[in-house]
Amino acid sequence: MLKKAKASLEHLYRVFTVPEQGDSKLAEIEQHLSANLSDFLSQHVVTQARSLEDLEQDFADFRVPEEPEFVSAHAEHLLDKLVANSVNTYSPTFIGHMTSALPYFHLPLSKLLVGLNQNPVKIETSKAFTPLERQVLGMLHKLIYDDSDDFYQAHLHSARRSLGAFCSGGTVANITALWVARNNLLKADGDFKGVAKEGVAAAMSHYGYKKLAVICSKRGHYSLSKAVDLLGLGREQLLTIDCPGQTLSAEKALQAARKFEAQGNKVLAIVGVAGTTETGHIDPLSELADVAQQLGCHFHVDAAWGGPTLFSHTHAKLLTGIEHADSVTIDAHKQMYVPMGAGMVLFKNPEDSNAVRHHANYILRAGSKDLGATTLEGSRNGMAMLVYSALHIFGRSGYELLVDQSIEKAQLFAQLINDDPDFELVTDPTLCILTYRACPRIVQAQLQQASSTDKERINQRLDELTVRVQKQQRESGKSFVSRTRLEVAKYPGQTITVFRVILANPLTTKQDLLDILAEQKAISEKTQTFQKLISPAA
Amino acid sequence: MLKKAKASLEHLYRVFTVPEQGDSKLAEIEQHLSANLSDFLSQHVVTQARSLEDLEQDFADFRVPEEPEFVSAHAEHLLDKLVANSVNTYSPTFIGHMTSALPYFHLPLSKLLVGLNQNPVKIETSKAFTPLERQVLGMLHKLIYDDSDDFYQAHLHSARRSLGAFCSGGTVANITALWVARNNLLKADGDFKGVAKEGVAAAMSHYGYKKLAVICSKRGHYSLSKAVDLLGLGREQLLTIDCPGQTLSAEKALQAARKFEAQGNKVLAIVGVAGTTETGHIDPLSELADVAQQLGCHFHVDAAWGGPTLFSHTHAKLLTGIEHADSVTIDAHKQMYVPMGAGMVLFKNPEDSNAVRHHANYILRAGSKDLGATTLEGSRNGMAMLVYSALHIFGRSGYELLVDQSIEKAQLFAQLINDDPDFELVTDPTLCILTYRACPRIVQAQLQQASSTDKERINQRLDELTVRVQKQQRESGKSFVSRTRLEVAKYPGQTITVFRVILANPLTTKQDLLDILAEQKAISEKTQTFQKLISPAA
Repeated sequence: MLKKAKASLEHLYRVFTVPEQGDSKLAEIEQHLSANLSDFLSQHVVTQARSLEDLEQDFADFRVPEEPEFVSAHAEHLLDKLVANSVNTYSPTFIGHMTSALPYFHLPLSKLLVGLNQNPVKIETSKAFTPLERQVLGMLHKLIYDDSDDFYQAHLHSARRSLGAFCSGGTVANITALWVARNNLLKADGDFKGVAKEGVAAAMSHYGYKKLAVICSKRGHYSLSKAVDLLGLGREQLLTIDCPGQTLSAEKALQAARKFEAQGNKVLAIVGVAGTTETGHIDPLSELADVAQQLGCHFHVDAAWGGPTLFSHTHAKLLTGIEHADSVTIDAHKQMYVPMGAGMVLFKNPEDSNAVRHHANYILRAGSKDLGATTLEGSRNGMAMLVYSALHIFGRSGYELLVDQSIEKAQLFAQLINDDPDFELVTDPTLCILTYRACPRIVQAQLQQASSTDKERINQRLDELTVRVQKQQRESGKSFVSRTRLEVAKYPGQTITVFRVILANPLTTKQDLLDILAEQKAISEKTQTFQKLISPAA
Repeated sequence: MLKKAKASLEHLYRVFTVPEQGDSKLAEIEQHLSANLSDFLSQHVVTQARSLEDLEQDFADFRVPEEPEFVSAHAEHLLDKLVANSVNTYSPTFIGHMTSALPYFHLPLSKLLVGLNQNPVKIETSKAFTPLERQVLGMLHKLIYDDSDDFYQAHLHSARRSLGAFCSGGTVANITALWVARNNLLKADGDFKGVAKEGVAAAMSHYGYKKLAVICSKRGHYSLSKAVDLLGLGREQLLTIDCPGQTLSAEKALQAARKFEAQGNKVLAIVGVAGTTETGHIDPLSELADVAQQLGCHFHVDAAWGGPTLFSHTHAKLLTGIEHADSVTIDAHKQMYVPMGAGMVLFKNPEDSNAVRHHANYILRAGSKDLGATTLEGSRNGMAMLVYSALHIFGRSGYELLVDQSIEKAQLFAQLINDDPDFELVTDPTLCILTYRACPRIVQAQLQQASSTDKERINQRLDELTVRVQKQQRESGKSFVSRTRLEVAKYPGQTITVFRVILANPLTTKQDLLDILAEQKAISEKTQTFQKLISPAA
């Protein structure tokens, strides 16, 4: 294809029929990726971050380019403008994200996936991808619910039931779970044809509810707020309970529910989190299941992050109670080390997803096994293949090792932080996530004795310090931790800023962790905030 | 990694750090894909279809395998069980799907995308992917709305506005459009805080609406029915208008709206389709825009299929009126030849998406440019990169040629069908989709003179014939057309079964089309149904 020449059909056919030459720029990129991903990224991702405003200059043209561009010229352009300014998620010192290094086999498998380009919305466009996806859902269902062989033999490939739904990520999974919950609660009843057909206003009126709520802790994922908006319940009906200990108190959840229901309202669902995004904590799932049962409401567990803990014989017990959930969200692109875009929701009762079943003439015909009949998304890609492959190549015992090592590493890091008098561990790791902050030893001593007003003042300075250190560390490009704001039991009534670290990357070593702390200390000590904090007049 | 051996951490690290060897099975697959995709698929995808029930036997185990598996052993397994039983979407004779051959450059680019594994939900995990995605949305916005340079300079990278949203596909795009429409219609007003916060029941009561409807034709995509369910309006409130001519009559839409609103209800949106899934027809967009304006409602255009027609100077006029749409859906994985999973919704007014804006502490902070603040999905992959690359490598003029050749090819196929006395063209191609059926010349003559009862009887036999021919052709594995059921003006009050053909694959030749017709005729003539149809006693 000529660059800046007039496009011709002959040239176009070439990109569909003639493979990239072995010595082309794109082939070169591909070979480098395959041979040494870490080296490729180190070589091409620039460490000195450009500002977003600066980057926007490279993506400022709003016109579709008129003439075709050489593939190789475009590949150079991508390296220069995009790859150079992307985030190195593979790096063992980038421990602030939930995306980490991926195993190599996903590179060629992703290429195979695109070469096949199946669409699992229906069998006609996906064939074996349909039973494959159902099997993956069945495996995760078994992992969570451990139902009988008869159960799985009856439902795994049933046309009338499904064990769950595949989707692009945890947000769609959570929305799907609450959609199913809403439609099941407000089901057809006598003359009323059900909320799916008649809508929320008619349903509330039929059942005599003023409002419908979803209860979770303040650490519940922001997708829940999207879900109650989308589903027509309203964001005010997401009742978020304070959780200074980072987990949802079953007692407080019950109290809030009773109070809400005493006003003529109804609780639709309790959502427990298994691995909060911010601190990795796990809500008391068994107790919450009891509360949901008492209330006669749906119990959903958002295990997008923590679900794979079930692979570990040592740590699975942290999730005890998840087997009572009516629905569970798991993201394979998090702790299952699959590329972005692999979310799942599992349903305890395989009849449940019928609450959102839909049909059309040319697709999803009644009685068909088309997956699209009960998914929120329509056409989508065959990501389930990568989950399937990862389940086989790692096996349960491989995933167990990955889970175990990440939790051990987080415990080690917590120890390193505790051992260093100039850092303060803020939340202990339940899974492999922890939060902490730089807090000079002299300030730690002051905090212990300070009045609550003084504590607040000191914490504000520390917040400032944390923000500065986090930004400067990110900008210097060697390592990355993220930051968030939390309420913690130690400082009641306050929200403090903390470093947030996720130790899922199996390549991260103890030395990496020591280096990150050393770098943070060095940055911290050079800031004016630090100097003010430790000066006697502070 | 050992197969069926005990997993060890050392083995696990290998899959993260040691690339696939050049002579491994997976490397071999990759090389074959890169060298000749068509040959790879011909060699590995079996042509003799196995039944779904049979395939399910290969995906019947519901337990996560306990021990790890060699990557190469697994690659063999994938070839044998999955690739062999997938659909050959690249083949020029598989013209029944909306997925067709992809250009070669998407193979290495997809690998790069997975190597980078960015998450565009926020800048922190996607950096340059954020302005890139906004640029892609801007280019499509410009293509549709052709607004001024000032407009794009002001909004392309704005933190407070957005020109659209990227998503996994047209279904999520349509849902997002109607979500925005609902929240804008039922916005905050005096004491009422808006539907997003208070929910649908409170909103309907505040505004005094009994029901809210969405109007489209019977050919509207099934995702619209999902959308009105999800959004709490109820599926009965999707008013689908009969369309024997395959397009939505503006007059009938207005009548239905007036009737609905006279009962104390309100029309939320009119949805026009630009390229129906079944026949490729385009609704009269300008007229529907007028109706929407008269009703004071949202006008959405579902151009998932037909949107790229705008690249063609010759055919863009077919979509005249789309520039009046408040929102437009386009799927890049259809006529933009990008792999599955690239949907977009564009908003005429960049303030519109604020109706669904949301924030959280650790992400999507107020004032940030994080894309996740106004998307339905949360974490997702960086597919916008592939759209960006395709826009550059094809250019507008390249896409124009692709659009033009596919429409010309559909017109040619229509001519071939018309020229053959044993086929009946059912719907003409507006874009590159058409429908037809096998109809022996003697039966065509009978139909012209038959009473309406006889027509119905004959059409039922023809339906049977179409189903048999379509299935047998699919099963014989050389070529594939799909089928659907339609109402057409010629046979009022009846729904007939037709072959459905989509001529988007640039590799399909005239000879392929002649061969497909010849094969259908040969299959048809061997059926009992055919013999009965042509026998004098019929």
